[in-house]
Amino acid sequence: MIIITRHDVTDEELDHIRERVEAFGLQTHLSRGKHRTVVGCIGDEEVLAGVPLLSIPGVEAVHTVMKPYKLANAQFAAEPTKVPMGSISVGDTAVAVVAGPCSVEGLDMLTQTAQRVKKAGAVGLRGGAFKPRSSPYSFSGLGEDGLKMLADVRAETGLPIVTEIMDPRQADLVAEYADVLQIGARNMQNFTLLTEVGRLQRPILLKRGMAATVEDLLLAAEYVMKQGNENVILCERGIRTFSDATRNTFDLAAIPVLKKETHLPVIADPSHAAGRRDLVAPLSYAAVAAGADGLLIEVHPVPEEAISDGDQSLTFDEFDALMEGLKPVAEAVGRSL
Amino acid sequence: MIIITRHDVTDEELDHIRERVEAFGLQTHLSRGKHRTVVGCIGDEEVLAGVPLLSIPGVEAVHTVMKPYKLANAQFAAEPTKVPMGSISVGDTAVAVVAGPCSVEGLDMLTQTAQRVKKAGAVGLRGGAFKPRSSPYSFSGLGEDGLKMLADVRAETGLPIVTEIMDPRQADLVAEYADVLQIGARNMQNFTLLTEVGRLQRPILLKRGMAATVEDLLLAAEYVMKQGNENVILCERGIRTFSDATRNTFDLAAIPVLKKETHLPVIADPSHAAGRRDLVAPLSYAAVAAGADGLLIEVHPVPEEAISDGDQSLTFDEFDALMEGLKPVAEAVGRSL
Amino acid sequence: MIIITRHDVTDEELDHIRERVEAFGLQTHLSRGKHRTVVGCIGDEEVLAGVPLLSIPGVEAVHTVMKPYKLANAQFAAEPTKVPMGSISVGDTAVAVVAGPCSVEGLDMLTQTAQRVKKAGAVGLRGGAFKPRSSPYSFSGLGEDGLKMLADVRAETGLPIVTEIMDPRQADLVAEYADVLQIGARNMQNFTLLTEVGRLQRPILLKRGMAATVEDLLLAAEYVMKQGNENVILCERGIRTFSDATRNTFDLAAIPVLKKETHLPVIADPSHAAGRRDLVAPLSYAAVAAGADGLLIEVHPVPEEAISDGDQSLTFDEFDALMEGLKPVAEAVGRSL
Amino acid sequence: MIIITRHDVTDEELDHIRERVEAFGLQTHLSRGKHRTVVGCIGDEEVLAGVPLLSIPGVEAVHTVMKPYKLANAQFAAEPTKVPMGSISVGDTAVAVVAGPCSVEGLDMLTQTAQRVKKAGAVGLRGGAFKPRSSPYSFSGLGEDGLKMLADVRAETGLPIVTEIMDPRQADLVAEYADVLQIGARNMQNFTLLTEVGRLQRPILLKRGMAATVEDLLLAAEYVMKQGNENVILCERGIRTFSDATRNTFDLAAIPVLKKETHLPVIADPSHAAGRRDLVAPLSYAAVAAGADGLLIEVHPVPEEAISDGDQSLTFDEFDALMEGLKPVAEAVGRSL
Repeated sequence: MIIITRHDVTDEELDHIRERVEAFGLQTHLSRGKHRTVVGCIGDEEVLAGVPLLSIPGVEAVHTVMKPYKLANAQFAAEPTKVPMGSISVGDTAVAVVAGPCSVEGLDMLTQTAQRVKKAGAVGLRGGAFKPRSSPYSFSGLGEDGLKMLADVRAETGLPIVTEIMDPRQADLVAEYADVLQIGARNMQNFTLLTEVGRLQRPILLKRGMAATVEDLLLAAEYVMKQGNENVILCERGIRTFSDATRNTFDLAAIPVLKKETHLPVIADPSHAAGRRDLVAPLSYAAVAAGADGLLIEVHPVPEEAISDGDQSLTFDEFDALMEGLKPVAEAVGRSL
Repeated sequence: MIIITRHDVTDEELDHIRERVEAFGLQTHLSRGKHRTVVGCIGDEEVLAGVPLLSIPGVEAVHTVMKPYKLANAQFAAEPTKVPMGSISVGDTAVAVVAGPCSVEGLDMLTQTAQRVKKAGAVGLRGGAFKPRSSPYSFSGLGEDGLKMLADVRAETGLPIVTEIMDPRQADLVAEYADVLQIGARNMQNFTLLTEVGRLQRPILLKRGMAATVEDLLLAAEYVMKQGNENVILCERGIRTFSDATRNTFDLAAIPVLKKETHLPVIADPSHAAGRRDLVAPLSYAAVAAGADGLLIEVHPVPEEAISDGDQSLTFDEFDALMEGLKPVAEAVGRSL
Repeated sequence: MIIITRHDVTDEELDHIRERVEAFGLQTHLSRGKHRTVVGCIGDEEVLAGVPLLSIPGVEAVHTVMKPYKLANAQFAAEPTKVPMGSISVGDTAVAVVAGPCSVEGLDMLTQTAQRVKKAGAVGLRGGAFKPRSSPYSFSGLGEDGLKMLADVRAETGLPIVTEIMDPRQADLVAEYADVLQIGARNMQNFTLLTEVGRLQRPILLKRGMAATVEDLLLAAEYVMKQGNENVILCERGIRTFSDATRNTFDLAAIPVLKKETHLPVIADPSHAAGRRDLVAPLSYAAVAAGADGLLIEVHPVPEEAISDGDQSLTFDEFDALMEGLKPVAEAVGRSL
Repeated sequence: MIIITRHDVTDEELDHIRERVEAFGLQTHLSRGKHRTVVGCIGDEEVLAGVPLLSIPGVEAVHTVMKPYKLANAQFAAEPTKVPMGSISVGDTAVAVVAGPCSVEGLDMLTQTAQRVKKAGAVGLRGGAFKPRSSPYSFSGLGEDGLKMLADVRAETGLPIVTEIMDPRQADLVAEYADVLQIGARNMQNFTLLTEVGRLQRPILLKRGMAATVEDLLLAAEYVMKQGNENVILCERGIRTFSDATRNTFDLAAIPVLKKETHLPVIADPSHAAGRRDLVAPLSYAAVAAGADGLLIEVHPVPEEAISDGDQSLTFDEFDALMEGLKPVAEAVGRSL
């Protein structure tokens, strides 16, 4: 921790600043510049987290030296983490494509979709039984019935299931059916839910919030990991900006940034980022070219009849074409499909 | 609902578009322009909410005519709603100032703060017993002990209590102690929590999320109101933007926009918006000048020793000065303190 | 300047970092922490501006200690600057309201508007002769004819003229007619234009760019001041964010931030920030309550017939009402109109 | 153009709205819904551009049907435009990589860089002689001397030159030396400059502004094209958002969006988007995978000694590696290098 003092700091203020810091067991170290005096704080700076140093008279700015996340920090892991999903691993050489409808709408459409995406190369099935919707008047999912359909289709196709959890009271219920539990963007800082799923023995797919920095996302992962569940997959799905050509702004650079900052696998959700079917393929290629470990793709038998997110869902043929186009891109960067 | 077709739409596509819409019980109405044909949809457009009209071949753009929120819509209320908070009402002529520490740290500091802010004119006491924190390593509140302290201080000072709820499983617990339950910015789209507090008989203070539009905020209020709880206070507390001079960007214009869009009362939280003590007074004056019905202000006996948010907490003297300065501003716009 | 090294920095790298810094005439100072080593750079840190310190092997982060602007810095001025505008000063106790149409459309409408806003208390007349428009197909102003009309109306009403300059080749032309030259938001980092107007003897009204930080704005002012023209008025007019309830997001907090960072006067343009006539009054009250030294308001005899910005222009009656409402707000914060 | 009226619009207001629109030579067409009446405007909607329809009493919202750009609109071109750059074309099957230092610092470093990037496969040389800098105290380029060095190096290596123009008075000067004139992000809405370069016979590389929407960028291109210069290359280089992990937020999705909206070629500048050397390669791969027609890459013999942008400049070896890695990615999407 480095404290920069105001240009007119007094000696009394300097003494008081040092006392405050030293009271936490750290050493201080003065460096007097031409215009400013800088107080270096040596020792375990975590004890200063949350201490309102800016409130101490004479302090102008405070800079931290350490990253606030530990379990998720790449520096504290010998090698990249591979998160199991059914019989495969996310974070492996093969790019893991998880596909399926936004919502589980019925057994037939789900079975049909699962068979088709599996044939095209998907290694997981997505589908929402509990759906977070901006409006209370929108369809919010089939609930446990939807979970059962997902399990039935897994039994039939062998595809592991990725589905969202919204309520901490349903942690055990969802974990009973799902292979991977998804935390949606709107719940990325629902710390109650993060803590609850941290206690489960199921991998977590954690989506970046619409206003979350990379650090916020890693701290959210830290919440889960701190409870003992280290199987966290991070997902870039677009952030909120002024740019109105797409539903969200796909922050592609977050993918390689995350790959450097953390040992956890990183996937992308181009469907939600774009909000438009016609952009899903180029965004998918880009994500994999930039190092993504997997993709989350919305596919629907008849998108124009989808109950939710139809505008961004691919048809079966479009998904086939996407997978065909993706293969050489993956190989170009040393990955496979 | 208005559907704009692509410039090269075919007659078959047009027929299909009309069929799809009419299948929902609406009438369609064609308007052929020089470059585009427009399909007007007449009837109850809510049935089209979530229908992926953009997915229908030949459709270029879709514009909604109605606002998606109803219970919160100003047009559906004869007059502004006043939300009870202890013996006063938020939304009345008097500007309601709620003050107190970020976190409840102990009984003494809370009592001391409550007495002092009451003397200065505050009509409510804020204080967190359950604290949402970005990092799992930060102090997360005293829990039920904190709630009890709040109740004790209410007993002593008569100030109603505003405190945050984070977990749907604690709805009854928090409601037992609090006069107003606060939903924090990070939980604004925690629909599980919104639905749960909608079932309570306690007023809700709903903070705008960091990436929430005004419409998102009103839809979140709609979640609460749809359960039968119409006592919702909205709170502007800053949004996430590129601007780095303050912790968040205080979207002041949202206050008069909300006052037009909804009948619910609107307050401001300048402490979180600014993240800096020295800006709390000017932002408070501005909020009231723009029509805010109240303010949420962080005050601490010794900010530099606060466990959380010390940098933005006012000292007692600063709060006194704020209230003194606020009085003539409130009167200038026809309000009182 | 403070340099934080990577956790695995080698002694050779540390030596090289110090050599690089010392080559610029600064002294270095090592502070070894538990996890990181910090290199303090003592001396004139401006010589390091632009030096890519992050490129030196072993460097993880660099923090500057000094603000990059000098002439605009509040610390380098004994007192607030008052900028002359005709016979009055912007930055004085009286809040300076400058009003008028977006574009000069003709002599009659301009005269009529000037007379009316003057009667209501405006102390300056705004009006564009050269208009920056997003589309090349939009009306771009009457050019020099418009300037002449502005000068004629000044002669008749005594109101000083504020008008925009877009082209460095027209600096002398515009300066011949205008009392204050406005640099629009889109030209805030048009350094050619900033340098050119810095050579004039006319006050400059510098609008904040839509993506400009407070520091960017102050550096733009520095460009003008460095040429010898210290009469710069800064103007907050809204920034680009995801929030779609208003045309731009009015960054109200920038007003008190700027009042602390610089000695230059700060005004607000609620018309452009809101983009909606019905929000101009509340935003104006808020700006003055937060410390603005003046306002820039669009007024038009018949807004629905305005060639540009009609949606945000006030009618004469609305402007009268605004000024009447503004007076007590100004007085509440120790100002006058 | 579609006008949506307020729910309480009167018949008189409706008549007035129709009169106003019909006065511009358009026909109107009424569609009465359950809650709203919609006025369709049939005819050439461009005549309504800039007309403040929202100002007409009774109007609630206005939706345009047509895109505001024409010359740049993909619908108005039979095929994609290829822009000549020396002996190659941007927009062709081959991905055009333009590389070089941020600033021209001297003849030696420029020659050395040009030879090396050419050998690695670059088809153009970038280098700034006139540099827009946020601070007036930063190095702003060698001016005409820099242009001469660029011409000398072109003579020696055969690489066409891309260099920035900042001042409309220097249009002829820069055009004398450069093969392609670059308009920087900060000048994207410097309409004076856009108009001036539109009169030249030189291709223009137009960078997206930090707060510019895709539509803003296309309208800026329209300014250039309207003067007769249709050789415009668009460049995505990152936008300003809250995300702080990179210098700007690389809006990758803008690349495929632009490829659909316009016939002009689209390139990417990953160096400025990232602001960090270690992200240039993944962002380059992603851009090409998403359909970019070219890249603009900063390369410097010794980045840590670069006068500007050293932190994001590649070393020669890093550029070699980038080109080697890029080749299979380009081929994977049907392009070459």
